[in-house]
Amino acid sequence: MLSVAVQVFNERGYDGTSMEHLSRAAGISKSSIYHHVAGKEELLRRAVSRALDGLFAILDEEHARVGRAAERLEYVVRRMVEVLIAELPYVTLLLRVRGNTDTERWALERRREFDHRVAALLKAAAADGDVREDIEVRLVTRLVFGMINSIVEWYRPDGRGMSEREVADAVAQLAFGGLRKAS
Amino acid sequence: MLSVAVQVFNERGYDGTSMEHLSRAAGISKSSIYHHVAGKEELLRRAVSRALDGLFAILDEEHARVGRAAERLEYVVRRMVEVLIAELPYVTLLLRVRGNTDTERWALERRREFDHRVAALLKAAAADGDVREDIEVRLVTRLVFGMINSIVEWYRPDGRGMSEREVADAVAQLAFGGLRKAS
Repeated sequence: MLSVAVQVFNERGYDGTSMEHLSRAAGISKSSIYHHVAGKEELLRRAVSRALDGLFAILDEEHARVGRAAERLEYVVRRMVEVLIAELPYVTLLLRVRGNTDTERWALERRREFDHRVAALLKAAAADGDVREDIEVRLVTRLVFGMINSIVEWYRPDGRGMSEREVADAVAQLAFGGLRKAS
Repeated sequence: MLSVAVQVFNERGYDGTSMEHLSRAAGISKSSIYHHVAGKEELLRRAVSRALDGLFAILDEEHARVGRAAERLEYVVRRMVEVLIAELPYVTLLLRVRGNTDTERWALERRREFDHRVAALLKAAAADGDVREDIEVRLVTRLVFGMINSIVEWYRPDGRGMSEREVADAVAQLAFGGLRKAS
């Protein structure tokens, strides 16, 4: 049910989706859906939670916690791309959330918290002298997140294209060739 | 009228906008609007044309035509950011076009053409040995465009924030620090 709901939300937009649309897409009655969830907002919360849990879990991984900030940052950027691709429909939905309901505002708040955690790593790496300091941290964070998040616009998991690893490598090479001080 | 229409399209989505919405937002009657344009699709065409004309005009500028490919590419990337910010609502609309009508399909086709022109510059710069060749041209183009296009999500032209020039410098520094071969 959750994966069907996410697909419909991504196609029609969350606001444009009714329980009727969800019931038709899932091939089950509305009352069956209400048997499992309180309504479409609960489906949204579960879906964006899956994306957010995937992203926050990165920060608990060993390579994100131990070592020089610049290396931890590079690890996190690479893993963000991998999680984005592995959980593509869920992260796509998360990135399209606009803030009209409590659940959407909560999701935006959690996204901001994640952004801040990554920005803090970037600041630490700059303090270590490992990344350039001539661009404001907030701007760099936005641009690097922009590059990563844009992947949802074109990545198609059809098996013919690039793997998660290949895209993650390219993003890390591009972002860090630019971020790292020339030695 | 055009700037009002673009604002409404960006707020409600093109599909979600009726002539009634446009008439109310502009404070003029529907028949007055029809006196000037055939319908909302003509307004969309004029609006995305303004964005596309701005982008294609970059390629005709001297620094985009003369010099080493890598320098021309850097110039184009910088100017893309400046045009995006100068024509923010128009480019925002262009980037949200999905391809449901003839005008939308035409806009997507023109966007692809622009992307190809920039990708060709990147290829030429790689052939000159001035930019890295270890990431596929199509992927680099997508990631750099993703970084640039993401600016529409957060840039607010309220006078308190960064200037077009500052954002353009940051994007160029980030993209080219990463793209350029370490010497």
